[in-house]
Amino acid sequence: MKTTLVKQLYREYESFNNKEVELTGWVRTIRDSKSFGFIELNDGTFFKNVQIVLDDTLDNFKEICKLPISTSLKVVGTVNITPNSKQPFEIKAKCITVEGNSSSDYPLQKKRHSLEYLRTIAHLRPRSNTFSAVFRVRSLAAYAVHKFFQEQDFVYVNTPIITGSDCEGAGEMFRISTLDLNNIPKTKDGKIDFSKDFFGKETNLTVSGQLPDEALALAFRNVYTFGPTFRAENSNTGRHAAEFWMIEPEMAFAELEDYMNTAEGLVKYVINYVLENAPEEMQFFNSFIDKGLFERLQNVVNSDFGRITYTEAVQILKKSGYKFEYPVEWGIDLQTEHERYLTEKVFKKPIFVTDYPKDIKAFYMRMNEDGKTVAAADLLVPGVGEIVGGSQREERYDVLEKRIEELGLNKKDYWWYLELRKYGETKHSGFGLGFERILMYLTGMQNIRDVIPFPRTPGSAEF
Amino acid sequence: MKTTLVKQLYREYESFNNKEVELTGWVRTIRDSKSFGFIELNDGTFFKNVQIVLDDTLDNFKEICKLPISTSLKVVGTVNITPNSKQPFEIKAKCITVEGNSSSDYPLQKKRHSLEYLRTIAHLRPRSNTFSAVFRVRSLAAYAVHKFFQEQDFVYVNTPIITGSDCEGAGEMFRISTLDLNNIPKTKDGKIDFSKDFFGKETNLTVSGQLPDEALALAFRNVYTFGPTFRAENSNTGRHAAEFWMIEPEMAFAELEDYMNTAEGLVKYVINYVLENAPEEMQFFNSFIDKGLFERLQNVVNSDFGRITYTEAVQILKKSGYKFEYPVEWGIDLQTEHERYLTEKVFKKPIFVTDYPKDIKAFYMRMNEDGKTVAAADLLVPGVGEIVGGSQREERYDVLEKRIEELGLNKKDYWWYLELRKYGETKHSGFGLGFERILMYLTGMQNIRDVIPFPRTPGSAEF
Repeated sequence: MKTTLVKQLYREYESFNNKEVELTGWVRTIRDSKSFGFIELNDGTFFKNVQIVLDDTLDNFKEICKLPISTSLKVVGTVNITPNSKQPFEIKAKCITVEGNSSSDYPLQKKRHSLEYLRTIAHLRPRSNTFSAVFRVRSLAAYAVHKFFQEQDFVYVNTPIITGSDCEGAGEMFRISTLDLNNIPKTKDGKIDFSKDFFGKETNLTVSGQLPDEALALAFRNVYTFGPTFRAENSNTGRHAAEFWMIEPEMAFAELEDYMNTAEGLVKYVINYVLENAPEEMQFFNSFIDKGLFERLQNVVNSDFGRITYTEAVQILKKSGYKFEYPVEWGIDLQTEHERYLTEKVFKKPIFVTDYPKDIKAFYMRMNEDGKTVAAADLLVPGVGEIVGGSQREERYDVLEKRIEELGLNKKDYWWYLELRKYGETKHSGFGLGFERILMYLTGMQNIRDVIPFPRTPGSAEF
Repeated sequence: MKTTLVKQLYREYESFNNKEVELTGWVRTIRDSKSFGFIELNDGTFFKNVQIVLDDTLDNFKEICKLPISTSLKVVGTVNITPNSKQPFEIKAKCITVEGNSSSDYPLQKKRHSLEYLRTIAHLRPRSNTFSAVFRVRSLAAYAVHKFFQEQDFVYVNTPIITGSDCEGAGEMFRISTLDLNNIPKTKDGKIDFSKDFFGKETNLTVSGQLPDEALALAFRNVYTFGPTFRAENSNTGRHAAEFWMIEPEMAFAELEDYMNTAEGLVKYVINYVLENAPEEMQFFNSFIDKGLFERLQNVVNSDFGRITYTEAVQILKKSGYKFEYPVEWGIDLQTEHERYLTEKVFKKPIFVTDYPKDIKAFYMRMNEDGKTVAAADLLVPGVGEIVGGSQREERYDVLEKRIEELGLNKKDYWWYLELRKYGETKHSGFGLGFERILMYLTGMQNIRDVIPFPRTPGSAEF
C-alpha cells in the first residue's frame, strides 16, 4: 500500500472520504481514555497534524496509548470527513505499528518552550510548530527568489565563497587557512608566509559577491547571486549573524531607477508567493508571533513604494520636531530610528531613500553630478527599517580610479574590476538583500537566530 | 523607447518584422567595406548575436566601423526577416550611439583562445561563446534542481557552512579563524587556545551538510540542501576543486530504493530541463565541445537505470578478462576505470551499484543483514563514472553507536546525531550530487575549472 502524504490529504480530503490510507509520521500528542484515544500525527509534509482516532478494538491499543512523543508510527485507517469538528477530517485507525521508538525524556514536550531554550536543541526544534513554519517559509521564499529572477531570464551565478581579495570592503572577515598554527611559516623578514598556505596567499570568507557579480552582469546583462556571506563582527544582537544568505542581483544597461523597480518587484513577489503557498504557516505567525503581520505585509504588497532623496529625508526628519536619540544632520548615516520614523510615521509604506552623501557609502557607487552624493538607494520598510541596499555602480574608469585613490585603496587589488570599465563599460546597477532580513519580515520572528536552522554567532557554532 | 532584449527578438522575430526596435549590447565583431558594414551585437540575454547592418547614410558610419570589440552600443533600427540567410533576421541600423568605450587591446579577440588562457581572464571569459553557454546552462540546471524538489514539496534547507564539528568525515578541511597569527593564544599546557577564537572553538568549512540535513529530514520528511562545500585536498586534477556546490537530499521513511528512484528522477529532470531551455547552448556543446553529447544525454534520459550489487559488479569485472590498471578484488573501492567499464561496456547505460563493503564506506551507512555490506548505492554514468553517492542511513541507535566506537570516533561529537535515533528514529536515506559533476556531464567540459565562474584550486584564488 502506498503511503499517502498528509499535505495531499489536507488539500484533497473530500476525495479521500471513507477510503483507506496508510500514513507514516511522528506522534505529536496522545490523549486517551479507557476505551478510545486520539493521536496527533505529523508526517513532516504539512504544518498541521492529522487526528488519528483509535479504540480498544486494536490489539495493541494499550501499548500505543503509552507511547512517548515523537515515536514514529505507521497507521492504516479510514478517512472520515468531520464537518462539525475543528479539523476537517480524521483517520479511524485499523492498524497502528511502531516504526521507530522515542523516549519519555524527549526534550520537546508539549508545553511551550522559550525560543532561547529551543536554540539549544536546534537538531529537534524544526519539529516544533514555530520552527516547522519558519523553515518551510524559508524554503518557499528561497524558491520564490529563484522563480522571480528566472522568469525574467536573469542568470543565476555563484560567486566565490573563498576570496583572495580583501577589497570587498563590506566588513570584517574570517581568515581561511590550512597553515599549521603550531608552526606558522615566516618569510625572511619575519612576516607570515602566506605563499605556503593552500591558495598561495591570504584568503578569507566573502562578505559580498558584488564585485565578481559585476563581471558576470557585463557578460549576461542580468544576473543574481544567492549564497552564503560572512561577517566576523563581534556583535551579539538579534539582527546579526556571522553566516547568512544574501541575494545580490546586478544589471547592465540599468540605472538606479531600474534597480529600484526590480527590488520593489522582488519584495512583492516573495511576499505574495509565501502568502499563497504557506497559508497555514502565515496564519500561525499572524496569530501567535506577530498579530499585525498580515496588515503589514498587505500594506507592502499593495503600496507603490515611495521615493525621496536623502537630502529630503534629512529635511523631513529635522522639521518633524521628534526627539531622536541620534540627532539628524546632513551627512550622517541614517539610524534605524530615523528610517523607521520615515517609513512608519511619515510615509506609512515602504520607501526608497536615494542619493546619499558619498562619504557614508562605498567607493564603487556612482558619483552624482553634484560631486557630493552618489546614486545609491536603500529600501526602508515599516517595522524594520532598511531591508535592501543598492546603487548604480561607477562605470566611468577615471572617476572610479580617482575614488579608489582618494580612499587610499590599493589600485593593484582592483585591476580586473577596473578592466571591466575599460572594455565595454555600461551603466549598471545592483543591490543586496539579506535573505534572513526578509524572512524575519515575513514571519515576524525577532531574532535572526530563529530563522536559520543552525545559526553561527560569536561564541556559537554548535551542531 | 523601450529596449528590446535579444532573446525576445529571437523567440518572436516574426512579430517584429519591419518594426523599429532599440537594442543595447556589446560588439562581438565588426566587418566593413567602403559603404556598408555588419556588427555582431550581443546583449547578454541570449547565446546568439544579432546582426546589425549599417551603411554610410549614418553620420557616424566611419567612426562606428573602427570601434574595438566589446564597445557597448545603443542601436535603433528596423527588424528585417531574412529567410535565405544564416541568421533568421537582421537589424537595419538607423542610429547607433556609443554607450561605453572599449579598447583595441581587449584581451578576448575573435581568434580562438585556449581554455587555460581564458582562465587567466575569468572576469572577461563569460563574454566568450563557450563560457556564455556554460554559465547559462549552470543557471538553468540549478533552477531545474530547485524546481524538481519544490514540485515534490521537498523543503530547501541551508545547513551551516562554518562547522564546529570535525565529524563530517568526508575530507580534509579548511580552518576558519580570526586569531591573530602573529600572536596565537596558548593554553597553560602550550596548546592553541581556540576558546579565544571567534566561535570559542576550532571551526572549519563544511565538507558536507548531510549530518544536520538528517536532523531536518526527521522534521520535514523530505529536504534538500544546495550550497557550497569545501575540500582542502591538494589534488590538482581536472575533477577537483577546493570549493564546489553540492545537492544533498535527505528523505525520512525512505529506503535505499527510494533514494535511487529520486536520484534517477532528478538526473533525468535536469537533463531534460536544460535540453528544453537552452537548445542553442546545447547545440553549441554538441558541435564544438563534445560531438557525442546529445547521444549520451538521450541515452541517459531514455534508459531505465540498471541496478546491481557491488558483489555482482566485482564478479562481472573479474570475469571480463579485461586488464585493469588496478586489479579487482572483493573489498576494493571501485576505480573510475572499473566504473566506466561497467556502465559503458557492460550495461551501456547508467547503473546503480549497491551494497558496498562496510569498510570502504562511511560510518553512518546502514548495515545490511550480512554484517559485511552496507545499504549504499553509487550512480555510475557512461563517460564519467560515479556521479551520485548515497545510502540508507543507520537509524538503529545501538548499531550506530557500535559503528562509531568500532571506528574509534569520539562519541561525544555525535551526541545530537545519536539523539536523532533516540527520539523518533525512522528509516531514512539520502544522497549527494556534486553540482559541477553534473554540469561537466551536461556540457562536455572536461575541467571543473571551466564550469565554475571563479574556481578555487590549490595555489589559486584569483578574482
